Amino acid sequence: MAAVKTMDDLFLHLLKDMYHAEKQLLKALPKMAKNTESSELKKAFQTHLGETEGQVKRLEKVFDMLGKKAQGIPCKAMQGLVEEGKEAMDEVEDAEVLDAALLAGAQAVEHYEISRYGTLIAWANQLGLKDAARLFEQNLAEEKNADKLLNEIALGNVNQKAA
Amino acid sequence: MAAVKTMDDLFLHLLKDMYHAEKQLLKALPKMAKNTESSELKKAFQTHLGETEGQVKRLEKVFDMLGKKAQGIPCKAMQGLVEEGKEAMDEVEDAEVLDAALLAGAQAVEHYEISRYGTLIAWANQLGLKDAARLFEQNLAEEKNADKLLNEIALGNVNQKAA
Repeated sequence: MAAVKTMDDLFLHLLKDMYHAEKQLLKALPKMAKNTESSELKKAFQTHLGETEGQVKRLEKVFDMLGKKAQGIPCKAMQGLVEEGKEAMDEVEDAEVLDAALLAGAQAVEHYEISRYGTLIAWANQLGLKDAARLFEQNLAEEKNADKLLNEIALGNVNQKAA
Repeated sequence: MAAVKTMDDLFLHLLKDMYHAEKQLLKALPKMAKNTESSELKKAFQTHLGETEGQVKRLEKVFDMLGKKAQGIPCKAMQGLVEEGKEAMDEVEDAEVLDAALLAGAQAVEHYEISRYGTLIAWANQLGLKDAARLFEQNLAEEKNADKLLNEIALGNVNQKAA
């Protein structure tokens, strides 16, 4: 963050962070969908993959608006979450326990993104970037909806089966 | 996660993960309080430090209930968030921009914890560990309150000053 001197720099830094985070998710979600035996969870991961593709495009539009090249900065928090998911897929053998782990991991990812888009919206508004704020709001609405759906699945049968 | 075979194992794994996460926060919050020039933010970090000390004790009670030794497992997501905060404190010179970065980082931490305590409550209830669920609920209420407070500060003057 040595290059961060102004709010504009900080905003661009977080935009790059989220761009990297969403691109990591693009790679992780198909693996998660492949590794679950729950049809509900598989569908949720596949639906969110489609949403994530659209979210990446919205972030690219914001880079465009700023006249900057779309570029990621490794997001360590997201890397940590994705790595834990990989570990679970490699090492947890019981299908129901793995589903519970994947579901919880996905919810942690959604909460991380909800927090980050909330911050990006606040900073965009503050910097007078209303069009960027509107694009982030669309991403935020999708993340909140994905978290709600995962919560419904969690409260439904996946966790109960695993008990 | 090679040792995770059952829901009990998965539950214990996440408990250890959160124990490590809260202990990392115990070290980070005093540094964050020291590095902000905003009296509001300083107070918020100090208050949450006191809460975090209580939360660590509640997690230790849950270890006790399970007849297990309180022990952390490095939580990579939280390590990533804490590391980003450190980077900001080391490298961002402008006080108002640093405040905005610390505030956003703290909110990402709270959201991570909110998600994890939600999962721990669901799993504890499922495993019949009602007393543990109640302790996690107390931690969750504090995290939600801390996030709300940070949000009020974010919408207040810190970010506007930084613009």
